[in-house]
Amino acid sequence: MDKREAALKAHKDWNGKIEVISRAKVTTPEELSVAYTPGVAEPCVEISKDVNLSYTYTRRSNLVAVITDGTAVLGLGDIGPEAGMPVMEGKCALFKTFADVDAFPLCIKSKDVDEIVNTVKNISGSFGGINLEDISAPRCIEIERRLKEVCDIPVFHDDQHGTAVVVLAAVLNALKVVGKDITKIKAVVNGAGSAGMAITRLLVSRGLKNVIMCDKYGSLYRGNPEMNSEQAKLAELTNPDNLDVKLDEAIAGADLFIGVSAPGILTAEMVGKMSEIPVVFAMANPVPEIMPDEAKRAGVRVIGTGRSDFPNQINNVLAFPGIFRGALDVRASDINEEMKLAAAEAIASIIADDELNEDYIIPDAFDKRVCEYVSKAVAKAAKDTGVARI
Amino acid sequence: MDKREAALKAHKDWNGKIEVISRAKVTTPEELSVAYTPGVAEPCVEISKDVNLSYTYTRRSNLVAVITDGTAVLGLGDIGPEAGMPVMEGKCALFKTFADVDAFPLCIKSKDVDEIVNTVKNISGSFGGINLEDISAPRCIEIERRLKEVCDIPVFHDDQHGTAVVVLAAVLNALKVVGKDITKIKAVVNGAGSAGMAITRLLVSRGLKNVIMCDKYGSLYRGNPEMNSEQAKLAELTNPDNLDVKLDEAIAGADLFIGVSAPGILTAEMVGKMSEIPVVFAMANPVPEIMPDEAKRAGVRVIGTGRSDFPNQINNVLAFPGIFRGALDVRASDINEEMKLAAAEAIASIIADDELNEDYIIPDAFDKRVCEYVSKAVAKAAKDTGVARI
Repeated sequence: MDKREAALKAHKDWNGKIEVISRAKVTTPEELSVAYTPGVAEPCVEISKDVNLSYTYTRRSNLVAVITDGTAVLGLGDIGPEAGMPVMEGKCALFKTFADVDAFPLCIKSKDVDEIVNTVKNISGSFGGINLEDISAPRCIEIERRLKEVCDIPVFHDDQHGTAVVVLAAVLNALKVVGKDITKIKAVVNGAGSAGMAITRLLVSRGLKNVIMCDKYGSLYRGNPEMNSEQAKLAELTNPDNLDVKLDEAIAGADLFIGVSAPGILTAEMVGKMSEIPVVFAMANPVPEIMPDEAKRAGVRVIGTGRSDFPNQINNVLAFPGIFRGALDVRASDINEEMKLAAAEAIASIIADDELNEDYIIPDAFDKRVCEYVSKAVAKAAKDTGVARI
Repeated sequence: MDKREAALKAHKDWNGKIEVISRAKVTTPEELSVAYTPGVAEPCVEISKDVNLSYTYTRRSNLVAVITDGTAVLGLGDIGPEAGMPVMEGKCALFKTFADVDAFPLCIKSKDVDEIVNTVKNISGSFGGINLEDISAPRCIEIERRLKEVCDIPVFHDDQHGTAVVVLAAVLNALKVVGKDITKIKAVVNGAGSAGMAITRLLVSRGLKNVIMCDKYGSLYRGNPEMNSEQAKLAELTNPDNLDVKLDEAIAGADLFIGVSAPGILTAEMVGKMSEIPVVFAMANPVPEIMPDEAKRAGVRVIGTGRSDFPNQINNVLAFPGIFRGALDVRASDINEEMKLAAAEAIASIIADDELNEDYIIPDAFDKRVCEYVSKAVAKAAKDTGVARI
């Protein structure tokens, strides 16, 4: 049986990777009269007087919705809501396994931004948080922004911010390995989609000053007519000399390359133009912007990819379980920039300085400390920034 | 600790009566690579080619949404979506306990019919069925009807149809006890809300010919200006002599009274006007239209209520778990009239003729046979009527 057949068989045998069970024992008339009528009326009355008690008397204090419209599922593109569901269920399985967060998958049968926003807003009172997933850009950015405005619970698009958090963690430790300071380096982010933009924003929040973003048409610069409205905002934050260049020029003298673009984009020749001891994160999947062995031969000191079969895997599972665990633990109303920065620092901090090396800059996905460190740091940042509600 | 405090304490200890767990073990990189990337892409691709495979590779084959807008929760009225959640979670606990159906509660933060219909339609691809709950009349009727049109999965408003199924089961056995034929009796249904109308429709489907529905203003008759549009449809099906009467006249000569109205509505004097050996279902909660002891003194032979502390409790838990179990088992596209009739007959059939007596016309809620009998009968009716898809 090949891997394809094995994956299909496993999914068929699971017949769903999540299950909804009862926490209430209901096997006698007495138990029924507490869990259901007439006893159930009591928590209903209490919540109707104070809606915050929904966190005490129902599951929402530990419950996250994992939501997609199926328009950008993995690398498969717009395959439809039902077809995106195995990924959403997988995400829910990871939430429960890594952070004991109950997560429930919902796929939305509409691609209309207004419809998606309304639908999610309408069901938001059932949950303690919303994790958006695999929604195509630039719609995902507008959907998230509008939902953050209308919902009083955290809304988090993992493909943007989960990725950004793990990349920042990796960057912080990689710069330690090469002995450079994030505020003084030059970076290039190739791929100005939603993930690339979120990564850039978070790196800038953490002190990065000199970064150029590139897309297929070249660099993002103020006044570039090829940019969409989201990219225009990034052009304000980046490219200090406002250069109109292609990647092969932008890369000159760069200390750090981050790719969320396409296979093979970064050539050995381009690496040769980078500064000394460069750092590369090549996250195109499944084939990265440059293969690790080629990057090393060209002089790259630290390379990370999205793949589990190479060292330094940039894996979102390092971030989202702990981020939501921390947010739920303090009943946060938002997952803000400070909480994301705290999550990244927490992931980076797990590897002690004397363990850190070019092939070990981020912890293993199954390292039990990750969720604990991240959740505590995120909860603290939520309290420090006033978004914690308990 | 009184009952109120005990119910609150139990709900606080549960901290939610449902929990979402992982059916997939994800504790090693190998397991992760099957349940999540890259393995998860395989079922996604298969479902994108044939959406029916979502029933094979995801949980929807066993998954029902329990949905409310919080406008008619128990007898508490419009207490808001979050405050309705303990009832929805309770319902989900019963689905799992009684029928091994995974059920997930969603409360909708809108009272607008269009918004509710759109929201439920948009998420319907995540589920195998939709159970509507505690939505105020007459909105609930329109919402259900429109959802049945736009969804390709069963949509079932339990407050209407679950109640109707159990009442019909009880009526069938009560008429056996008193030796009467449903096609020949006269019945009065008092309370022309959504439950009363659903009960009347199902009894008429089963052969009842002479039935008068009453509401506060008196009988439903063709041309009555007090009726709403839904009641006008019922006036076409009922009241063969088109009488404009109040309850105390309508009741004259009736063999069967069904109350879904208000406490104390049915007086001993009215019972005195009924035919010989009358049957009464007095389902106002918590105080019925007539108390069982008073009804018995006035000559009623069989009386049922909604309460667990009297014999013959009309309890929806006898119906909805088995109905959805049967519908899911054959991947039904609808829960139609024939399936509801089959469910009622199945519930009634559980009590053998020699066990049947005036205090035992419906099985106990915890009778293990109920879900099995109902689900099999419903699945068969689905096949017989062409709505089964496997």
